Amino acid sequence: MLDRQFSADIQSRIDQKTKPLGSLGQIEDIAFQLALIQSQNKDTAVTNIKIDKPMAIVFAGDHGIADAGVSIAPSEVTQQMVVNFLNGGAAINCFCRANNIEIKVVDTGILFPVESDHPDYFIQRLGDRTANFAEQPAMTTEQMEKGLELGQRFVETMIDDGADLVMFGEMGIANTSSAAAIVSALSGEPADACVGRGTGISDEQYNKKVSLVATGVERCQTSEPYKVLTELGGFEIVQMVGAFIGAAKRGVPVLVDGFIVSAAAYAASLIDPSCKDVMIFAHQSHEAGHKLVLSKLDANPILDLGLRLGEGTGAALAVPMLKAAAEFYNTMASFAEAGVTV
Amino acid sequence: MLDRQFSADIQSRIDQKTKPLGSLGQIEDIAFQLALIQSQNKDTAVTNIKIDKPMAIVFAGDHGIADAGVSIAPSEVTQQMVVNFLNGGAAINCFCRANNIEIKVVDTGILFPVESDHPDYFIQRLGDRTANFAEQPAMTTEQMEKGLELGQRFVETMIDDGADLVMFGEMGIANTSSAAAIVSALSGEPADACVGRGTGISDEQYNKKVSLVATGVERCQTSEPYKVLTELGGFEIVQMVGAFIGAAKRGVPVLVDGFIVSAAAYAASLIDPSCKDVMIFAHQSHEAGHKLVLSKLDANPILDLGLRLGEGTGAALAVPMLKAAAEFYNTMASFAEAGVTV
Repeated sequence: MLDRQFSADIQSRIDQKTKPLGSLGQIEDIAFQLALIQSQNKDTAVTNIKIDKPMAIVFAGDHGIADAGVSIAPSEVTQQMVVNFLNGGAAINCFCRANNIEIKVVDTGILFPVESDHPDYFIQRLGDRTANFAEQPAMTTEQMEKGLELGQRFVETMIDDGADLVMFGEMGIANTSSAAAIVSALSGEPADACVGRGTGISDEQYNKKVSLVATGVERCQTSEPYKVLTELGGFEIVQMVGAFIGAAKRGVPVLVDGFIVSAAAYAASLIDPSCKDVMIFAHQSHEAGHKLVLSKLDANPILDLGLRLGEGTGAALAVPMLKAAAEFYNTMASFAEAGVTV
Repeated sequence: MLDRQFSADIQSRIDQKTKPLGSLGQIEDIAFQLALIQSQNKDTAVTNIKIDKPMAIVFAGDHGIADAGVSIAPSEVTQQMVVNFLNGGAAINCFCRANNIEIKVVDTGILFPVESDHPDYFIQRLGDRTANFAEQPAMTTEQMEKGLELGQRFVETMIDDGADLVMFGEMGIANTSSAAAIVSALSGEPADACVGRGTGISDEQYNKKVSLVATGVERCQTSEPYKVLTELGGFEIVQMVGAFIGAAKRGVPVLVDGFIVSAAAYAASLIDPSCKDVMIFAHQSHEAGHKLVLSKLDANPILDLGLRLGEGTGAALAVPMLKAAAEFYNTMASFAEAGVTV
């Protein structure tokens, strides 16, 4: 849990800026949270929020449930999109370029592996893909434990290497089904409150998806997060859970992307409640289960742009808001400095 | 009005990007609008949206109605904040620094002028301040006409000098009263639907503000925009109206900030409907009249951060979204380029 001894100092610094109290709304809230996170284990509150090396880590994984036809695209597309990430051609690449964010891509277990010696590509495969969670556990306990450890270690290595703001993205055909099942199992909410249309499926596919998710959740029979992750997958989600835990342990802020990443965030917060302290929520997606999981996390996302793509795109788009909040906190004049009448 | 001959080409380029159709939501809408604006008078649709020199122009002006106590601060603060802008200490400076936006400050008529040879400071005074619009016309017809001309010429000069995205900010104690009166007179909506709390006033001040605005609007007796601007002011609002008209004439996109700038945008759109084509709306403020004027302009703002500061802060914060949209349009791979299965 965050040490809040400097909360009053940080709020006072914000309130003395040359503006009506609270008039920068959510920008002030972001500055407060960043300053509080970066003041941990310090002697005084920081006066300079540092966001020098933001990093997006995209975890790719495939899902056995894809065979049931819950998605608009086949699993081949996971591989093709990983290649697209490495070539710099995907949406997440564009937003990372626009906002000076480093990007790393991790194969957590995709059906058709990519051969590449790209320096930003990392192989952390837990298998070829998860099993179909409607029929059997998505992975073994060993795979789940290894996934958590690999994800945590990966983000810790990146933080040791200078990353001071991280965000996670994902690619994996059918992973909204896995995320919906995880949210349903963890929250106790029915499947149809957690299942959305993903990137765009028909009514028939939607009904099948709800039914498969409900079957998986029923089979799972628990809300214990480690068990839920094992039963309902996926490989990329488990590694993201580990990554959240790693970022929280290092006290580094995490910009939380859309539905699938939020499902991982929810699981992480149940495993280690201190994860919530470092989470800043980037985007309110229109995916049915996303509002639910955001409410479980008391989240107030920064953006609402109607995104439904994943890859970490919402998080990457929100990075400038954090940089603006930092600039506000670091350099905006106080009433005293500017000689402005209070 | 925009020539829409390339609409289908632009939409097709967007739809062939490696993502599910429409899955980047508002980012796609922004890219479409920017591409359409920048394709005017071209032989083909642009394939490269250019945002190389975004510029914020902050218009400062004082208001006679301030004497009636409608604001939390005295008119001295307008001067002090102009100095703060020139020293780089205000919120708008921080957000411009964070997002690489040039900033210019224009004195359109502030009660206590600032002596400065700052290269980004421009004197375009229409008077010391407007008259109290509850009692008499805020300005003369000559002042209104000169203000429109100065604002238009200013933005055209900046565009000639390379500005390819402009946004307007304002500073002027009591200018929410003037903006509310303008919106009420132009729309025919009652004063209490247009008056907000500004940057934070008491119930008593609020009731007085509604009453003064209603008195001014009743005195005004017209919805003809030139007359409304003359009767209800203010100097900074009139110059912003001129600036909108200038940007529209040059076909340069304008990021529209909060309530006061939107009031100017509304007046500009009634004078010259083509102004609406170049407007991209940055922020949904919580000021009562703002939603009203946004609905009159069919606006769908990008951000909703609870800002209530003015200065152009909402617009400056939205600039990275436009740059991200441009990067998406310019460099994201198509399905064919990336070899991704449609």
